[in-house]
Amino acid sequence: MWDNFPYIKEELSAFEEYLESKLSSRIKFLDTASKNVVLSGGKRLRPAFTIIAALHGDYNRERVFPAAAAVEVLHTATLIHDDIIDNAKTRRGHLTISEKHNINLAVYTGDYLLTKALRLLLETGLEPDNLDILSRSVSLLCESEIDQYIGKYQVASLGRYLKRIIGKTGILFSATLMLGAKTANLSDSVTRIFGRFGTSFGAAFQIRDDLLDILSDQKTEGKPVLNDLREGIATLPVILSIRNNKALETQVNEIFNGEGDIKELVKHIISSGGVKDAERIKNKYINKCKKYLQSIPNTKFTAALEEIVDWL
Amino acid sequence: MWDNFPYIKEELSAFEEYLESKLSSRIKFLDTASKNVVLSGGKRLRPAFTIIAALHGDYNRERVFPAAAAVEVLHTATLIHDDIIDNAKTRRGHLTISEKHNINLAVYTGDYLLTKALRLLLETGLEPDNLDILSRSVSLLCESEIDQYIGKYQVASLGRYLKRIIGKTGILFSATLMLGAKTANLSDSVTRIFGRFGTSFGAAFQIRDDLLDILSDQKTEGKPVLNDLREGIATLPVILSIRNNKALETQVNEIFNGEGDIKELVKHIISSGGVKDAERIKNKYINKCKKYLQSIPNTKFTAALEEIVDWL
Repeated sequence: MWDNFPYIKEELSAFEEYLESKLSSRIKFLDTASKNVVLSGGKRLRPAFTIIAALHGDYNRERVFPAAAAVEVLHTATLIHDDIIDNAKTRRGHLTISEKHNINLAVYTGDYLLTKALRLLLETGLEPDNLDILSRSVSLLCESEIDQYIGKYQVASLGRYLKRIIGKTGILFSATLMLGAKTANLSDSVTRIFGRFGTSFGAAFQIRDDLLDILSDQKTEGKPVLNDLREGIATLPVILSIRNNKALETQVNEIFNGEGDIKELVKHIISSGGVKDAERIKNKYINKCKKYLQSIPNTKFTAALEEIVDWL
Repeated sequence: MWDNFPYIKEELSAFEEYLESKLSSRIKFLDTASKNVVLSGGKRLRPAFTIIAALHGDYNRERVFPAAAAVEVLHTATLIHDDIIDNAKTRRGHLTISEKHNINLAVYTGDYLLTKALRLLLETGLEPDNLDILSRSVSLLCESEIDQYIGKYQVASLGRYLKRIIGKTGILFSATLMLGAKTANLSDSVTRIFGRFGTSFGAAFQIRDDLLDILSDQKTEGKPVLNDLREGIATLPVILSIRNNKALETQVNEIFNGEGDIKELVKHIISSGGVKDAERIKNKYINKCKKYLQSIPNTKFTAALEEIVDWL
């Protein structure tokens, strides 16, 4: 990634050093756990977006890096808490904190990183109104996670599903880009377009994740597959396959009840067009992303966003 | 409480309305759970402190109420997460969220309220440096909670214990008062004294809690007693009783191992002077509080702080 954009690559590598320097704690457990979990890989898509958006204006590492770090640390904090809720055993090829240690330490480590994110945010020098871009997005994120959790073992409507994924994933991507734009003094209207790009990107990104969960091979992906269905969550391909073939709902409910053959169900999800239709909706969001990119002032960094959209 | 200070009482009652108005969510579960848990009582000591500190300067509800609400909502968020870790079944006479629903919903509700607190904080109009007063205190709070959790089933040294309770309780009280002072444009030096008052108050408050856990009657207190010992935490009276009588450490360790007679141990903690010595240390902090109150500009509201200190 970023092979065609050496300058972005360079910034991201400087950012990585900055991020590590910001993760120390006087409590040994937190110091080790924070560094392990934040620095254990991940694509750094969110910080990259913050940096790229900022490169469209008055780029200043001293304002951009804290913003990018705030977003990445916040994202990691939510992953730690999500892994409690999802009973996830591994993340990025490592044991999760809730699995390696226990739920209690995972709760506190997540809280600590949430607070760390807030402190980083305050270092950006942005005005409170702009800082609220991020806090509003986390608020929506929590609401959407609760909505999903309470709706477990039920097949959501397409509208509710889309609202949820935008809340769960889209809004944080949106905030990521808007914060970057704001640190670089871009106008409100350009910032808004970056925000819309982020929302659509996040929706497409989440649908891609849903598709991977259905289609990919556990060995190559390094994380469990069909986890959503096992955890009682009907993702987009499942929702759309039921729309095409009402009878599938019974099979989905069987899986939710811990019965039925999950591999058989996957075959039906594919054959009924659930996967294809989900890809179609993903492409709709991808096209929206491309449209938004045409409305922001074109720089040599805009193509990097296009490339990431194509990677989806 | 506050019977001698009708103006403070009035402000607190207006604050209560403000607080409720700030707790709505489009997700029904969060709306109900947030309101239930935040509005279910509690002494509102922290918001009162914010308000009283601000009454020493240019008092302005529009700046003070968001600060006071941020602190109270944040405090509630930490209680929700603490109740997960402590396996607490009830809080303020109601079932905890982790008990009434489950751990997962308690994690998310806590996260949601943490974020809500941040958003309220941004409404104060304070400068980032002053906003960091609160975020730094939460960061320390998480560190101290983790330190305590990792040190469970071990008797901490007095020094480590004091450091922990200041991190767990003192620092947030300190931030509470400092934020209030800052919303009222008080000078840095007066703000710092309010902060020190808060730290000492918090330490005395936590020791009072430790003493209640040892001495009080479950029926009158409305929350479980001897919970700390059962959860593997040696509080101040326990630490000091062992200092007076080394042999008690074996009995404490028996309780930690789920053996031994806890009521017998309590008798020994009292007879060895653990309770008395803890009260002595509490009084040391109370005297510090009174000393600090003499260094701030005296107003008709200063006596309210004196009264609260005497209540301890």
